[in-house]
Amino acid sequence: MADFAYDVRDLKFILNEWLDMEEVFGLERFRDNYGPEDVDFILNEVYKLAKEMIFPANREGDQTGVKFENGSVRVPQGIVKAYRFLQENGWGSANESLASDTIMPLTLYRAYNEILMAACPALSSYIKLTTGAANLIYRFGTDRDREKFLENMLNGKWSGTMCLTEPNAGSDVGDAATRAYPTEDPRIYKIKGTKMFITGGETDLTENIIHMVLARPEGGAPGSKGLGLYIVPKIWVNEDGSLGEPNDVTCIAVEHKMGLKASATAMLSFGENDNCRGILVGDPPDASGTSRGLAMMFHMMNESRIGTGHNALAQMAAAYYFAARYATERVQGRPFTSPGAGRVPIIKHEDIRRMLMEMKAQVEAIRAMVFRGFYYLDIAEHSPDKERAGRCQGLAEILTPLIKTYAAETAWAMVGQAIQVYGGVGYTEEYPASQYARDVKILSIWEGTSFIHAMDLVGRKMRMTGGKPFAGWMEDRKEFIEKHKNAEGFGPEMARLEKACQCVEVIKNIYDSYYAHLPEKGRLIPLYATRVLTCCAQLFAAESILDQALVARQKLAATAPDHPDRAFYEGKIAAARYFVHGILPNVYMITDLIAAADETALECPEEAFLAV
Amino acid sequence: MADFAYDVRDLKFILNEWLDMEEVFGLERFRDNYGPEDVDFILNEVYKLAKEMIFPANREGDQTGVKFENGSVRVPQGIVKAYRFLQENGWGSANESLASDTIMPLTLYRAYNEILMAACPALSSYIKLTTGAANLIYRFGTDRDREKFLENMLNGKWSGTMCLTEPNAGSDVGDAATRAYPTEDPRIYKIKGTKMFITGGETDLTENIIHMVLARPEGGAPGSKGLGLYIVPKIWVNEDGSLGEPNDVTCIAVEHKMGLKASATAMLSFGENDNCRGILVGDPPDASGTSRGLAMMFHMMNESRIGTGHNALAQMAAAYYFAARYATERVQGRPFTSPGAGRVPIIKHEDIRRMLMEMKAQVEAIRAMVFRGFYYLDIAEHSPDKERAGRCQGLAEILTPLIKTYAAETAWAMVGQAIQVYGGVGYTEEYPASQYARDVKILSIWEGTSFIHAMDLVGRKMRMTGGKPFAGWMEDRKEFIEKHKNAEGFGPEMARLEKACQCVEVIKNIYDSYYAHLPEKGRLIPLYATRVLTCCAQLFAAESILDQALVARQKLAATAPDHPDRAFYEGKIAAARYFVHGILPNVYMITDLIAAADETALECPEEAFLAV
Repeated sequence: MADFAYDVRDLKFILNEWLDMEEVFGLERFRDNYGPEDVDFILNEVYKLAKEMIFPANREGDQTGVKFENGSVRVPQGIVKAYRFLQENGWGSANESLASDTIMPLTLYRAYNEILMAACPALSSYIKLTTGAANLIYRFGTDRDREKFLENMLNGKWSGTMCLTEPNAGSDVGDAATRAYPTEDPRIYKIKGTKMFITGGETDLTENIIHMVLARPEGGAPGSKGLGLYIVPKIWVNEDGSLGEPNDVTCIAVEHKMGLKASATAMLSFGENDNCRGILVGDPPDASGTSRGLAMMFHMMNESRIGTGHNALAQMAAAYYFAARYATERVQGRPFTSPGAGRVPIIKHEDIRRMLMEMKAQVEAIRAMVFRGFYYLDIAEHSPDKERAGRCQGLAEILTPLIKTYAAETAWAMVGQAIQVYGGVGYTEEYPASQYARDVKILSIWEGTSFIHAMDLVGRKMRMTGGKPFAGWMEDRKEFIEKHKNAEGFGPEMARLEKACQCVEVIKNIYDSYYAHLPEKGRLIPLYATRVLTCCAQLFAAESILDQALVARQKLAATAPDHPDRAFYEGKIAAARYFVHGILPNVYMITDLIAAADETALECPEEAFLAV
Repeated sequence: MADFAYDVRDLKFILNEWLDMEEVFGLERFRDNYGPEDVDFILNEVYKLAKEMIFPANREGDQTGVKFENGSVRVPQGIVKAYRFLQENGWGSANESLASDTIMPLTLYRAYNEILMAACPALSSYIKLTTGAANLIYRFGTDRDREKFLENMLNGKWSGTMCLTEPNAGSDVGDAATRAYPTEDPRIYKIKGTKMFITGGETDLTENIIHMVLARPEGGAPGSKGLGLYIVPKIWVNEDGSLGEPNDVTCIAVEHKMGLKASATAMLSFGENDNCRGILVGDPPDASGTSRGLAMMFHMMNESRIGTGHNALAQMAAAYYFAARYATERVQGRPFTSPGAGRVPIIKHEDIRRMLMEMKAQVEAIRAMVFRGFYYLDIAEHSPDKERAGRCQGLAEILTPLIKTYAAETAWAMVGQAIQVYGGVGYTEEYPASQYARDVKILSIWEGTSFIHAMDLVGRKMRMTGGKPFAGWMEDRKEFIEKHKNAEGFGPEMARLEKACQCVEVIKNIYDSYYAHLPEKGRLIPLYATRVLTCCAQLFAAESILDQALVARQKLAATAPDHPDRAFYEGKIAAARYFVHGILPNVYMITDLIAAADETALECPEEAFLAV
């Protein structure tokens, strides 16, 4: 298999040339620890690591997979080694956890983390979950909880999980049946229930695993508002921080999955022997039986949902880079326009070019979108200017479903295209494309399915705070268009962008009218929601990469004719043009569809879907 | 895992209610052996077989996979059993081979074969290749060849392969390096070379394997026109039909593939010990070094290419039926329009409906298109009316690339959607969706990549015989629109179809102008070819399912209110409407794209595609 290769240049462009990183590095939380001068060093170091250690572990991890025996899970050795290396050497959770003194800006952390996700998606999930669990404890735990758990979670000794899903409660988390029974100690509950699809739920990566478990306390209200959050260590942690007894958490099974074979997706039974203790996070249920467990979990969700989209991007990008390199190496066929000439590398063939160009455009536009999301989150979390922080928080919340879902859905199409570029060998496991195809599909389901995010967009994000944040988001789009509509050389592109922006306005008005005509129009809201999301995402992605292209054009003017950067800048402009001309018109088509409001899918009799 | 279920009702509709099967069953070749009364019986029998024997073998086959050891390949036992059962009992090659007295109409054979492909794609490939090899011998071999090989190939004792691809000659078959050296016997050559991606190239299914090998005879011209075709038995067949010595064909490796794990994809070395004999098919090279090997192979290609699209259809259909059934069984979430109600099966959710409806529309439209293809082939091959036969041959040739490519490309998107309907469990191997995703991807590469077919369409099929067949094909579309434009209740659908038809005319004119302005416009031809193919396919698929909907509407009027067929007919009309409103507008968008003739993908510097 070819060595790992990744477009670190585009990440450097984002941080060094495009985003306003001065603002980010200038924030008090980061000022003393990081600056623009760290960007290239960090990216280069991680790239080296990815090539030498992480990507080889990825291949071994896929072939070996996790092994489940007698309740224990063995993770492939390369993954274990890489996990420990990253966590112990400060390349993992320590840089992302709010608990860490040297937390990085998300923009910076995520830039290098993208390379690691691309090099080994299964490995990154273990780290991601540990960070998420640690951040929950940091934000909502007591000082004592922080002291007991955080250090070991950030230094690689322990790992963490998030336990939401149950066999009977997937997308509908509120139906969770896991219970929490009070004990004499008001902060300690006995946990009883079964959780499934728990990434890293049982492994031999670390000596202990800290599970963050949603469960319904006795007297808790039904539905999601009755759920509390509990810290449930696999091995009990004594008051002095030492390890105590095993805590009655049993791994019943691990899933046999299509991909991510080195990631242990566990089914866990809590309290089989009535002896599983959990530490309550936050307050006990109030008089109405309400707990804030799910709300606390969701507090971490913007980042991890953008992170899931980012993960999808990293995988499709890696599949694309591998395919592009193969296309320059594989000699096959003669040029269409001069069939008498010799055989050429397949990248010379127009259709291969088209496929690579589409992948490049999608990858770079989505990456631009993702990093704007992280940028907003950095400002929202750390800016002293509360108004600006609030505005950025709103923008990040709007972007979250767009990034998560558009990236995950697009990734499936793009990895399929990467296989296509390879031809027959792409279907074999000798080349990396097929593993990316198998690994990436879960991301449209993880952290909320595409539909859940679409409803989050049309039902919540478009309407929150009286619709103000979304109106502000639309204002930003119009402002961009107004500012650049006469940008030299980008006239046709800006015209298309403006049309797409008007389409999204049309869609927004249609949706407003649905909400104004409930219940008659009610079913149209979910029926077209995923398509609304696609339109908003493509509009924003197109603008983002056009904005990058404007920077690239300026840089190009100042770059010597023989400088290697020229190809990068020209490629950036080409990617922007391709996105706007070749992908964005989808928004116009969908707008017509939404306006037509065809309800055939709902009117079709249910039995007509079933094979007989 | 759930039992196998398949929409046999739609297949019965096609043969009993839609296609003019009277014409087909009335053909002399079939008249005495088959009639309309056989349709339901055959489909029902095969459906039972698929449930009881074939689908269980599919699952075992995926889990076990083929095993390669010391040059031998072990095929999973269930597949071996099923292969022999089908071939020995006349459910396999015997029904499709021209050599067979009781050959079935393709329309009938393919209808039941679709169920088998859906139940076990890996198994079907072995049969398909055997049929293909047998048909080559039947058509181009000598009487002696036929006597020696055909009986045992059709009764399951021997199997067959097609050996085209080499490590250095994939899409570009003409670069094949395998050689054929003459011997004293003018019909016997010594074969030397390596072939790869040979489905069924080595197995323990049968006691002998008959390889049909493309090789370049000494003195053969370079490129594809220099290739000859040779019958190369794994074990030599003596003149009396008994088995002789092993024929120096060695299996070097089998591919580790993303899917189709029970299908042995072999790399074969011919003549490692200079002792591999092949029997020449057809004439030796003429004075200019030209042989008709590839032309003979291609003669079989229309059917096997439509067959490949059909295979993709069968797999996406199966994935859809499984997902639809799961959606009626899985209870999760509450209705959007009455959140206070109880939990409902997920098929009640609007977005699940949308996904199922899209799958249903694609599946039924593609199936309609596929069977029109087989219908044309039946007439072309067997009609005594030479003019009609010729016309149908032309239509089948135009449909071939459309069906092959549109079905294979759509399948990847649709199996992804099937996984999405399942949610998290769809990503596990406990449910069948993920296997279909892994199995189906090869079909956009097999039998010519999507691009090869797109070029076949724009470069050959649109232009052959002075463009007459394609013009005739377009006339058929217009005639349909003219005839039905006022069909009651289908006004908006017919209007959209007409617009799509006009779009394809626009595209055809644009392409004509490219050919009129060579070489300047040359690179645009391949650049947009795959998109041209998509437009033609969506136009034809839309018309086909609309035509079915018109029949369904009539039938509906004559069906009692409580008859179970009502749901089928209503579903058919819904699928047609959804296809026309929700999928067909893509043609309008692509037409705009093609008219814009953006060349960004070609102008982008090559280095800009490469990660650094």
